[in-house]
Amino acid sequence: MRAVRITEFGGPEVLKVTEVPDPVAGENELLIDVDRAGVNYADTHQVEDSYLASPELPLIPGGEVVGRTADGRRIAAMIGHGGYAEKAVVNKYMAFDVPEGVDDVSAVALLVQGMTAWLLLKKTTHFQPGESIVVHAAAGGVGSLAVQLAKSMGAGRVIATASTQEKRDLALRLGADVALDPATPELDKAIIEANGGKRVDVVLEMTGGRVTDESLKSLAPFGRLAFYGMASREQPKEVTLPALMAHSTTVSGFWLAHAFRNPPLLHQAFADLSAEVKAGKLKVISGGDYAMSDVQQAHEALRGRRTTGKLVINPSK
Amino acid sequence: MRAVRITEFGGPEVLKVTEVPDPVAGENELLIDVDRAGVNYADTHQVEDSYLASPELPLIPGGEVVGRTADGRRIAAMIGHGGYAEKAVVNKYMAFDVPEGVDDVSAVALLVQGMTAWLLLKKTTHFQPGESIVVHAAAGGVGSLAVQLAKSMGAGRVIATASTQEKRDLALRLGADVALDPATPELDKAIIEANGGKRVDVVLEMTGGRVTDESLKSLAPFGRLAFYGMASREQPKEVTLPALMAHSTTVSGFWLAHAFRNPPLLHQAFADLSAEVKAGKLKVISGGDYAMSDVQQAHEALRGRRTTGKLVINPSK
Repeated sequence: MRAVRITEFGGPEVLKVTEVPDPVAGENELLIDVDRAGVNYADTHQVEDSYLASPELPLIPGGEVVGRTADGRRIAAMIGHGGYAEKAVVNKYMAFDVPEGVDDVSAVALLVQGMTAWLLLKKTTHFQPGESIVVHAAAGGVGSLAVQLAKSMGAGRVIATASTQEKRDLALRLGADVALDPATPELDKAIIEANGGKRVDVVLEMTGGRVTDESLKSLAPFGRLAFYGMASREQPKEVTLPALMAHSTTVSGFWLAHAFRNPPLLHQAFADLSAEVKAGKLKVISGGDYAMSDVQQAHEALRGRRTTGKLVINPSK
Repeated sequence: MRAVRITEFGGPEVLKVTEVPDPVAGENELLIDVDRAGVNYADTHQVEDSYLASPELPLIPGGEVVGRTADGRRIAAMIGHGGYAEKAVVNKYMAFDVPEGVDDVSAVALLVQGMTAWLLLKKTTHFQPGESIVVHAAAGGVGSLAVQLAKSMGAGRVIATASTQEKRDLALRLGADVALDPATPELDKAIIEANGGKRVDVVLEMTGGRVTDESLKSLAPFGRLAFYGMASREQPKEVTLPALMAHSTTVSGFWLAHAFRNPPLLHQAFADLSAEVKAGKLKVISGGDYAMSDVQQAHEALRGRRTTGKLVINPSK
């Protein structure tokens, strides 16, 4: 089969399409023909060996796929690696059936990004109807889905932040009630003002540094801030427990890998997300459908932070 | 009326019984004859001015009462202060009717302590059936109720900690599956061992210092630690958000005062707790029924951490 394989770590230039043996499904695994593979920031880190775990070489990158089994099941799945290829093997307990009416790009976006948004709302912060929520990086993969899901769950007010006017306009089109520039000085006061003078109930935060610090100051009693990334590479301030007690606030960390231990929860998430897509309440923004032979351009676009929405690779091209 | 009034901040010695004018019920308030006033750690902090909010002097301490209105309603209520007295005024929206079959000491224990235990489980940590839980200070006012409520909610395993064998025996009688001494070195490892080698889902913590630090290390992914007091007066270590992210863990602060803004939630809590008492599933441990003239001894006993269960003051004595 054709696949993107790297034999050395580096930038996008190490990504090369080559002919490799087909993978073989082991026990509790399914072999699928890959229709689309998702491209994530994690892939770019894996390729340059700057990820949380160091992979072995040679490596076929790609952690999420949608495709078909030999008997015609259409499934989406998260995998450790091996997605940028014509065929892939997936754990059968982690294979989600994709319903009719959910296209390939949407199905892939419901994996790492959709699951993250869903779990942050449903499990980590227990977001409730009527509550106010701040979604940072609201035009990003997770953020754009979180804005729509929060709205669909009956959010009292959705306050988006994004770094450019174009991204803020997108957040508003997706249903945010107001969109702020996260570079606004005294962001806590801007958030409270955007919430009609009231402190907010939930914050989904993946940027770090002062955005985290000031968001925490905007929380109402019983408010929750979920921290699931640090795109700016800047550490937020440390948090003291007496300060959390004085304001009855909660801070949560979230890393999707931990949810992999709970397949039933992931199946519930995928089914729920798929239903939202079918109902037209959740729209996935396509960020580019790349031929496998253009994989280097896909990585360059993602690394350059020029993209909006979900990037996928088509192994048949 | 007779009341305990302080005119300066300090230790138990500043608590003096004196004659003061009867309070007068304002709009939306009820005047009650106090049958019992609860004694809490918060009172000891308020009296020495080390509480979260600084009170004005002179002050009648006491934040919870059970008693009767002139028209015979038997009610329990939380108040800002003024409980250590023969009469008290309570907000009518925060007055809970005490059902038949719930005695005075139990009714008082269902206020600050019962509400705290209930809210920590139901609202702050979203405790789920089958989950494991560590209850520190498990023989204390909140702890002894939290052990029983967690069990009644279907806890997978309840791990109690208490500083003496007598208190640990009490925790076991209340339904804890195992009881540890919190002074155990490497408490995190002891907790995990007590949970059959698995990390724990929830920790209710009110002591501070190393007990908090080591408890946090015992949490499973998606585990939650609720911090609702610092009885040791020792600060726990600061928490970093990237560390919370690396383990998908949550830390929450809880201060009951913030729940006062939500009377319907408190009514739900009191009704639920009363029903548990009536059903025999929740037993309040009496920690001493003190005459008002013995208020200094009550505070000394609580500060010395020699007590077990609910301390109350009887203003008629």
